[in-house]
Amino acid sequence: MKTIEWQNDKILILDQTRLPGQVEYVTLSSVDEVAHAIKSLQVRGAPLIGVVAAWGLVLAVMSYSGPSAELAEIMNAARQQLTATRPTAVNLQWAVSRMMEAYDQVQDLDLSSIRHRLTEEARAMQEEDLSTNRLIGEWGARLLHPDTKVLTICNAGALATCGHGTALGIVRSAFAQGKIQKVWVSETRPVLQGARLTAWELSRDEIPATLITDNMAGFLMQRGEVDAVITGADRIAANGDTANKIGTYSLAVLARYHDIPFYVAAPVSSIDISMEEGSLIPIEERDPDEVRIIGECCITSVDIPVVNPAFDVTPSHLITAIVTEKGIVRGPYLETLAEINNVKR
Amino acid sequence: MKTIEWQNDKILILDQTRLPGQVEYVTLSSVDEVAHAIKSLQVRGAPLIGVVAAWGLVLAVMSYSGPSAELAEIMNAARQQLTATRPTAVNLQWAVSRMMEAYDQVQDLDLSSIRHRLTEEARAMQEEDLSTNRLIGEWGARLLHPDTKVLTICNAGALATCGHGTALGIVRSAFAQGKIQKVWVSETRPVLQGARLTAWELSRDEIPATLITDNMAGFLMQRGEVDAVITGADRIAANGDTANKIGTYSLAVLARYHDIPFYVAAPVSSIDISMEEGSLIPIEERDPDEVRIIGECCITSVDIPVVNPAFDVTPSHLITAIVTEKGIVRGPYLETLAEINNVKR
Repeated sequence: MKTIEWQNDKILILDQTRLPGQVEYVTLSSVDEVAHAIKSLQVRGAPLIGVVAAWGLVLAVMSYSGPSAELAEIMNAARQQLTATRPTAVNLQWAVSRMMEAYDQVQDLDLSSIRHRLTEEARAMQEEDLSTNRLIGEWGARLLHPDTKVLTICNAGALATCGHGTALGIVRSAFAQGKIQKVWVSETRPVLQGARLTAWELSRDEIPATLITDNMAGFLMQRGEVDAVITGADRIAANGDTANKIGTYSLAVLARYHDIPFYVAAPVSSIDISMEEGSLIPIEERDPDEVRIIGECCITSVDIPVVNPAFDVTPSHLITAIVTEKGIVRGPYLETLAEINNVKR
Repeated sequence: MKTIEWQNDKILILDQTRLPGQVEYVTLSSVDEVAHAIKSLQVRGAPLIGVVAAWGLVLAVMSYSGPSAELAEIMNAARQQLTATRPTAVNLQWAVSRMMEAYDQVQDLDLSSIRHRLTEEARAMQEEDLSTNRLIGEWGARLLHPDTKVLTICNAGALATCGHGTALGIVRSAFAQGKIQKVWVSETRPVLQGARLTAWELSRDEIPATLITDNMAGFLMQRGEVDAVITGADRIAANGDTANKIGTYSLAVLARYHDIPFYVAAPVSSIDISMEEGSLIPIEERDPDEVRIIGECCITSVDIPVVNPAFDVTPSHLITAIVTEKGIVRGPYLETLAEINNVKR
């Protein structure tokens, strides 16, 4: 089940707003369409939107036929449009910056060479994402004991990436090693990525998954039914504070209270070393109707005030370890994350 | 807006499964219909189902026309049927027991006297519930400072009672005193009593309410946006451990972590002095489709395993105070609850 494919000079994406009811692919032919697909959550998940945005820049150059010298303006506009779609996940900025660096290197060449170079870069990022996730899975699986009952929120799975997944990458690798007894899938209101995507994805792989509402997590922890919490990340600040799907922070507090390890799984590209601490991470506020309306059903009075922050920030002291493709990182994160980041750069 | 009315020897109830979309009353003419209405959540809320069950016993005697001597069997069967509908809220048992005590006193009289006595008792309970809630409101309002931002879960409001409400009774009384800045209404999956009932109820009274998903509570507390958590109770054990809507325990842990007071509002009839501690309270497990299906919309794979505990238990050490009609009770609850209970009995 591919989440993204480059086909006939267009982007093919699995439309995640229609899962699990319908498995449908959508073709994106322009930067506008890519921006819309990211905003509307047809593609979502920090690593995946990074790769999709990268391909978006390839689309920009593919549809351009003027003189090379004037392409820079087009590229900058596309970069801005794409990074403005969603503010919290840093992978989007990271991916687009990486593409622009590749472009800078070849911008004086002819259009065909530029196209070739950017296609190559986007493809590399897509392939790297899969191998990155496999490494995250291998590292993370080491943290788990046999018969582990994992609790996760949102979808940090194959559907959030180019395959295998980050948090679910750990689950997949650990399951292959016989270490997973069960995965508690928090439904993840308002957009229900847990119920719609994670439950579906795990079922397809025959990994035992049980769906819960978000407010059942404490109940299960109190009863000893959770051995580890594993989540993804949309942005990790230099000090280890981590932005992730709304509800993650509550889980981290509950995990600490019950003395349960709380792991964050993310590629190094989710670390934003330029951001000193979590309170500086911009939190996307989304349409109130995401809370008011489920499917076609309005669950409340149509005019009731709503807040809808899509993410929250978990302070690093609640995070037992961060699992990256470079290894397992533990506090003091200011040092360990700088180290892992320097290794990479 | 009445939740229940005794009219022409039948029970009229506001059908709470249809709110807020439709305001519809349903007539209940038999014990079977009452049991169904309670099970299906047409009426819900610990105090309200107690009163409805009491009227259910009136229906049992109203529809009976045999010899008085054989009525006892009918009454016992009705009592069993009604208390079996929902296991967690003790008010149901309490109300039915109180009605049976009244019945015991008059069972040797003629049918008309029995009918009269039971009608009188049910009516008294209904009226007492309203005055009880007003007292809870008055007591609880004393706990709040001006400009309080309250967070609540589920519906412990006028809709859960015969008027005014328990947790929302405190909100109402405090609002009348100018103490409420805002109420955060946790939507309360799976059945969405917060989104459907509390948001609606508060809006009608023009009390400022903002709807959130259950997983946003920690985020708001972290930002200093919650000054107090107030919830209802379905059963309070002798040591103060309190069963309430699933998600309440998570809120109590979050409140403690953020040093926010956590108040339980309930009538003395919710205290089950015979139950030593919370772990003994039976927790109702409801239909998995309540989690899988919202309105007409299946939010997940139809066959995904689900757990659906309707309640959880908050240990008494996380409860700042319990507000009853008799006053504000604080720990050590084993002593203070016994005391308040003796006063009553």
